[in-house]
Amino acid sequence: MRVAVVGAGVSGLAATKCCLDEGLEPTCFEQSQDIGGLWRYTEHIEAGRPSLYPSVISNTSKEMSAFSDFPYPEDFPVFLPNARLLDYLRRYVEHFSLREHIRFGTTVVSIRKHPSFASTGQWNVVTEADGKEVSHVFDAVMVCSGNFSEPSLPLHCFPGIERFQGRYFHSRQYKHPDVFQGKRVLVVGMGNSGVDIAVEASRVAAKVTISTGRGAWLLSRVFDHGYPWDMVFNTRLMSLIRTNLPGPLAWGLLNYKMNQRFNHENYGLQPEKSWLVREPVLNDDLPSYILTGRITIKPGVKEVKENSVVFHNCPEEEPIDIIVFCTGYNVSFPFLEESVVKVENKHASLYKYVFPTHLQKHTLAVLGLIRPFGAIMPLTEMQARWVTRVFKGLCHLPPQSVMEKEVNEKKKNQVQWFGLSFDEVLKTECLVYMDTLASFIGAKPSVLRLLCRDPWLALTIFFGPCSPYQYRLGGPGHWEGARQAILTQWDRTLKPTRTRVPAGSCSSFPSLLTVVGLLLLLAAVIFGFLQ
Amino acid sequence: MRVAVVGAGVSGLAATKCCLDEGLEPTCFEQSQDIGGLWRYTEHIEAGRPSLYPSVISNTSKEMSAFSDFPYPEDFPVFLPNARLLDYLRRYVEHFSLREHIRFGTTVVSIRKHPSFASTGQWNVVTEADGKEVSHVFDAVMVCSGNFSEPSLPLHCFPGIERFQGRYFHSRQYKHPDVFQGKRVLVVGMGNSGVDIAVEASRVAAKVTISTGRGAWLLSRVFDHGYPWDMVFNTRLMSLIRTNLPGPLAWGLLNYKMNQRFNHENYGLQPEKSWLVREPVLNDDLPSYILTGRITIKPGVKEVKENSVVFHNCPEEEPIDIIVFCTGYNVSFPFLEESVVKVENKHASLYKYVFPTHLQKHTLAVLGLIRPFGAIMPLTEMQARWVTRVFKGLCHLPPQSVMEKEVNEKKKNQVQWFGLSFDEVLKTECLVYMDTLASFIGAKPSVLRLLCRDPWLALTIFFGPCSPYQYRLGGPGHWEGARQAILTQWDRTLKPTRTRVPAGSCSSFPSLLTVVGLLLLLAAVIFGFLQ
Repeated sequence: MRVAVVGAGVSGLAATKCCLDEGLEPTCFEQSQDIGGLWRYTEHIEAGRPSLYPSVISNTSKEMSAFSDFPYPEDFPVFLPNARLLDYLRRYVEHFSLREHIRFGTTVVSIRKHPSFASTGQWNVVTEADGKEVSHVFDAVMVCSGNFSEPSLPLHCFPGIERFQGRYFHSRQYKHPDVFQGKRVLVVGMGNSGVDIAVEASRVAAKVTISTGRGAWLLSRVFDHGYPWDMVFNTRLMSLIRTNLPGPLAWGLLNYKMNQRFNHENYGLQPEKSWLVREPVLNDDLPSYILTGRITIKPGVKEVKENSVVFHNCPEEEPIDIIVFCTGYNVSFPFLEESVVKVENKHASLYKYVFPTHLQKHTLAVLGLIRPFGAIMPLTEMQARWVTRVFKGLCHLPPQSVMEKEVNEKKKNQVQWFGLSFDEVLKTECLVYMDTLASFIGAKPSVLRLLCRDPWLALTIFFGPCSPYQYRLGGPGHWEGARQAILTQWDRTLKPTRTRVPAGSCSSFPSLLTVVGLLLLLAAVIFGFLQ
Repeated sequence: MRVAVVGAGVSGLAATKCCLDEGLEPTCFEQSQDIGGLWRYTEHIEAGRPSLYPSVISNTSKEMSAFSDFPYPEDFPVFLPNARLLDYLRRYVEHFSLREHIRFGTTVVSIRKHPSFASTGQWNVVTEADGKEVSHVFDAVMVCSGNFSEPSLPLHCFPGIERFQGRYFHSRQYKHPDVFQGKRVLVVGMGNSGVDIAVEASRVAAKVTISTGRGAWLLSRVFDHGYPWDMVFNTRLMSLIRTNLPGPLAWGLLNYKMNQRFNHENYGLQPEKSWLVREPVLNDDLPSYILTGRITIKPGVKEVKENSVVFHNCPEEEPIDIIVFCTGYNVSFPFLEESVVKVENKHASLYKYVFPTHLQKHTLAVLGLIRPFGAIMPLTEMQARWVTRVFKGLCHLPPQSVMEKEVNEKKKNQVQWFGLSFDEVLKTECLVYMDTLASFIGAKPSVLRLLCRDPWLALTIFFGPCSPYQYRLGGPGHWEGARQAILTQWDRTLKPTRTRVPAGSCSSFPSLLTVVGLLLLLAAVIFGFLQ
């Protein structure tokens, strides 16, 4: 069974690898000359490719961002500068011999149903390399083209922008802070890149203002007691609490937690309707930059004038030299017909964010079109594991009507949690989502069953971070090293920062014990309350 | 009564102003052409003057760092970039018409006892301006020459440094991070400037390592719930708890608090003997820079080789191109004879860190030779208020033997709290120290007495931040605006960051209430426990 994989970024590599695992024959088409997608920094901005600024650091920790059978080396930092992440991807390609399946410099021009689609599910894939078009027939297609290539620049939302005498550009154009030297900078939008760019600009600019209509919760990578945020936040216990507590109580807890480091209202960041909030923004620097006056937060833009900007609810106008629009990206699949995947309002109606619901044969899947509040890598890998088994006929999708009902309900219900966002329905509680896909392929770990067989492992799985290795403990794709990887996840986390151990201290790694102990205590308290 | 003030930095300006308040006749000698001392940034390093790097931001909040009768403007940021702090000093000079009392470009060459010293207490002061020496006679002298001009560079503690092929310099030489572009940088010493420089270097350097033998507690300006650390930490209630709880309990509490944001052991920062710790280092950035691998912490330097450095307890040597010695400053008074003030081991034996104990007449005082764990400005101002009243004979010092006994005991007892430090005995619990001096001049606020007369003010004074205005409520130097300044301190704190108030939120400043409420609750709990 021949599978076309579009793109050799994180999703494309995982897709290629999972195809090989399942005995399929992948051909990965990559328009550029190298792997890495989003994570491959280039100084020059290339059309149709994502563009990073050099200071980008991953938002999720290395243990939570690993592919499930390939942990990061222990000496890698806990959160990875983009070059180290690319290094990891190169090692992945090397280790699983993926390179020979990738066609570099090859752009996918179109993917159309083969005339025999209704019976065979085949696709006509036209690619272009060195100016020559070639047509292929594939039994299945995995679309891994990402959603960070086409900037969204809604200038019509900024009345007067055409009069503006200064310079403006989309965050995609940003590489180095030099452009801001001595300037008065306005950053529009408070996503991760908006805040990153504002922080960098403020070190050289005359003044930096962030305009945000809706505000945001801000989280730091350095979470409680210095542990990585996602290793504390994304545990099975926490997910259970989040999804099972009555709404207002869960919301109250979250609200308290989010304001513990700093009161969002006092810092001008309070989300507008706080129970309809988008996903948190991750940044370690912003609070201190606000407190020291290096960055000022303002409401949404009301009007742009020749050399200044007026904000809602603000009498004075603000003189501005440069505007950076950090307004995100559009989702698009130029090589697909709208009848295959339709994108509306930045949202594609896909079953489990993967399968178009209305095709007669489920031989086309979209990977990585999801913005989890957690790492994308293990998630897109899980999608690939599921998709390859659907392709092979080992997993079955429900009838079209059931899938459509679910997709439509998702659209409506996404107001809960981090749902109603700028990029609307692309988010979900990642642990629940991972478990769902894992249960489809039979790789979901059973804590209860483990409790008898391997109680220490069971406790670690339940109370500890939900690291991706959990999904390799059994079932198809079972990996011998999974248990060991789980039990040593904290060692690999602490190793790169415990580089100075004072002479007096003897116990070098008591933290797994401490953490599990504390979590046990917490659980006891919570269950005590619930009874 | 004519008073010579040496230096027009923070201490010199406060001294000049307090002389005027008390009807003395100050003459302030400033060797450079402008006020500001430490806080006046110059791109060029001038001999005998402190040297800042341009990114320096004050470590204490504006409400806690104000002179006691001159609050910062409400739109100033909470923590002040050096240029804003200098701006504040200029306003202070302007407001109290100090400039006419300052002789710029005039260096104090020597201060010697006048032949009639034993009876008059007078001093011969020789100054130099435009190459000409002039001799003056003064009735009293206030030494405000600071202690950040003479770098301490103990090269003998770094065996092999003479072989080192790379570049090395003292932190005093540091201005811009460009010198670190692409280099492997070692920062020796983990004081405030050491960490600041490492953070800045890491944005351009190939690799940055901090070497610290003793480690340090690290605090962030952004403290609990985002309030400035010193407004939470330096309250009368907290000080009472710190100084009255049994040692190990107080230590345990502090230890817990310091590790709450991040576990110092996991980040390689654990102080070596944790109960003999020096004062905390203030930095907002370091934890996330360690977690993202941009800065690595190493133990003390064992040996320097040609192109690398070996650390204690570390097998591998680290290749290094540049070493920055952030090893602090020496204290010296080149214009004073050793018989007047003797500096030993970075420590001068002075009663209350101000008066030489052995002079027959107490007409010479040293100001600002103290490193409180809090703001220096109100403290040096309080010293000046006391000193001027001692000069006038309105306050009396105890007999020499009593003073000497106290000074010697201080030397011994400074191992408690943040005492035993690199700069040894220069630190003290600042609130207790302020109260002591205030009680000498009769300006210490009485919470109990206020409780009947003005209960709201009394509660704010006890539970709220111990802002300097408290020492202007009564007694000599009484200031009409003090009460109002205390009651509006949180307004001025929140104003510069609450720059975006979402449409939905109505109550704009409930925080004073909330904070006092919470503190009351805390107090109730604590007193409940103690009973």
